[in-house]
Amino acid sequence: MIQNEVMTEIYLDNNATTKPLPEVVEKISIAMSKAYGNPSSPHRRGDISRQLLSEARRQVANLIGCMEEKIIFTSGGTEANNLVLKSFCGNTVPSRLVTSAVEHSSVLKVAEALKDEDVDILPVDSNGRVEVDKLINALKKPASLVSIQYANSETGTVQPVEEIGNICREHNVLFHVDASQVVGRISIDLGTLPIDYLTFTAHKIHGPQGVGAVAIKSNNSLGSVFYGGDQEQGIRPGTENIPSIAGFGVAAQIREQTMPNCINTMRKLRDIFERLVLSSVPGAMVNGDIEHRIPNSTNIYFPNVEGMAMMAQLDAEGICCSFTSACVSARPEPSYVLTAMGLSEEKAYSSIRFSFSILNTEEEAVLAANRIGNIYAKLAGGMHQASGMA
Amino acid sequence: MIQNEVMTEIYLDNNATTKPLPEVVEKISIAMSKAYGNPSSPHRRGDISRQLLSEARRQVANLIGCMEEKIIFTSGGTEANNLVLKSFCGNTVPSRLVTSAVEHSSVLKVAEALKDEDVDILPVDSNGRVEVDKLINALKKPASLVSIQYANSETGTVQPVEEIGNICREHNVLFHVDASQVVGRISIDLGTLPIDYLTFTAHKIHGPQGVGAVAIKSNNSLGSVFYGGDQEQGIRPGTENIPSIAGFGVAAQIREQTMPNCINTMRKLRDIFERLVLSSVPGAMVNGDIEHRIPNSTNIYFPNVEGMAMMAQLDAEGICCSFTSACVSARPEPSYVLTAMGLSEEKAYSSIRFSFSILNTEEEAVLAANRIGNIYAKLAGGMHQASGMA
Repeated sequence: MIQNEVMTEIYLDNNATTKPLPEVVEKISIAMSKAYGNPSSPHRRGDISRQLLSEARRQVANLIGCMEEKIIFTSGGTEANNLVLKSFCGNTVPSRLVTSAVEHSSVLKVAEALKDEDVDILPVDSNGRVEVDKLINALKKPASLVSIQYANSETGTVQPVEEIGNICREHNVLFHVDASQVVGRISIDLGTLPIDYLTFTAHKIHGPQGVGAVAIKSNNSLGSVFYGGDQEQGIRPGTENIPSIAGFGVAAQIREQTMPNCINTMRKLRDIFERLVLSSVPGAMVNGDIEHRIPNSTNIYFPNVEGMAMMAQLDAEGICCSFTSACVSARPEPSYVLTAMGLSEEKAYSSIRFSFSILNTEEEAVLAANRIGNIYAKLAGGMHQASGMA
Repeated sequence: MIQNEVMTEIYLDNNATTKPLPEVVEKISIAMSKAYGNPSSPHRRGDISRQLLSEARRQVANLIGCMEEKIIFTSGGTEANNLVLKSFCGNTVPSRLVTSAVEHSSVLKVAEALKDEDVDILPVDSNGRVEVDKLINALKKPASLVSIQYANSETGTVQPVEEIGNICREHNVLFHVDASQVVGRISIDLGTLPIDYLTFTAHKIHGPQGVGAVAIKSNNSLGSVFYGGDQEQGIRPGTENIPSIAGFGVAAQIREQTMPNCINTMRKLRDIFERLVLSSVPGAMVNGDIEHRIPNSTNIYFPNVEGMAMMAQLDAEGICCSFTSACVSARPEPSYVLTAMGLSEEKAYSSIRFSFSILNTEEEAVLAANRIGNIYAKLAGGMHQASGMA
């Protein structure tokens, strides 16, 4: 192997966070230099910030087919999820949450903090999908909110959100969808989907970190997590993060204008990579629902290797990818998503997520797959040897 | 008056938000281009982000004399205040909050949402200062937290935080100080001050909007407002806003290295401006405590004019300043800060805040004062004439 080739970084951790586009970086720089006023300030410098805020709100709303006045900007996906869930759960008002075992930690931890009688955590099938009959069963008791992710960050598995949403409608229960991994990767039209609250974040679509949003379906309202000023209709007080919001707007606009191409590009790269890895690693398998999946992600089980060791080797050879969701990766535990799907701990420990973005190239997809094949051969050979020697 | 001179913008609303320094803008751009990894990701790109996060934490901690592991980054001052207050107030655990009538809305709204028996909102004297005997009286009943701002955003009045802190110590009550308007304007050494939680924000010291911090005095802990990942010791879950945090770090480091000069510059400009305005506007008076005041702010009462009309005229002539705190300025109400100090509604409506930064110049201070003198003469003359004609 050529040293230079080995060291070239290939970033395949785009479900953790994506690289901001140059247009986003530029917009943020300009915003900081020109639109540095407080949008609540009653003067020309405040006006410039208000205009940027309004432009970004329109751009972000357009990406998901939402009315712009129904976009509430937050500091990210975690806050957005908390904002929705805490409007309904754990208050003094009687309430009950129905969610799933594979949600992001910002949903699942809210659920886990509730009293047993106030929450139902639905299991998933072996593909990682919520079974709708279990949901219907859970809704026999009154509930205030159903919260199901659009797609899982680890496996990319897409939930039957439309079907779930219709069931929620029939049961007169509000429906929240964490779409952080889906906005910009599947076309979403909130106007036609039976979803009441959609949450998402800028840094999965080449926007900046530190900004997300809740999109509220018309007529629904929302409580607040913070107390403070009147910003964001009082739902999200605090001086607006104008530069990041402006960056979010640009990222959303670019994605909206190039959506079909982006989806095709990501799918093509992921498919090339996946096919090559599966063909070079004996016994490798894809975790999750291959039919219902976001186009940029694959989660692969590598038999007979320890995932952490493999990750370290991949990192040494320039491949950035993830063992589990970044928000829980500091913990040396097997993925709760994969174990909820029925994978053994051993299989979960030996599974790795690779997630592409539009900034990846076909060359990278091929190169990464080749490197992985080589690394796997060394590691699996070493482990066989080691166990043979034991 | 020369048209060009009239139109030159003079930004005197630095208590609302400051313009990011070029070094901050550059750092944020570089961070977005290079440190785009998720700091929770177990690979080289995550490493770069972790290093930036750690560097920024050290820089911000240094500015206020705090241990770096005791800095919790938030999305801003409002969130930081909520994080502290909600750790103690309004939970199921019995708790009582003592605060003041002139706090920022992110503190006062938490207080107002509590049950009457769980909160004491202390009045202030005519200078806007908390009277310590009233505090001592309030602490005759058990309390869990005292929350008093370091300085007020409208008047710049500095509270006797050391004296208050010592009283809290004597009564074994934790003490939170909202120092958003003070960090970088008065030297703060958390190591020696009797303060348990200090909250502040980047965008008042030429850092970016959308990032703030809680500094926790050693041994104290803190709850969380959000549920989610393990970021920021689990106190503040959610993907860290690396670019903005890095920008906060640079802003903090630059301010720390230039603190005495910055303070002198702001004080000099404010004093020149204030002296000129007071000498050219008959009956003008400074609101608040002139002796105990942050160096960059002045709040001036303009007799016989309507503040909103004057603000509009100032804006038309390029002077950006504020009627009240940006976080409540959307409401057409007199300043609750000034009325709490005993000013009449009429006087409150006729008072305007001017706040300087190190980016202002002496020329601007003089020019602004001159323009204000002229605008006032026109407005007050017009009003006298109008009332004479009635």
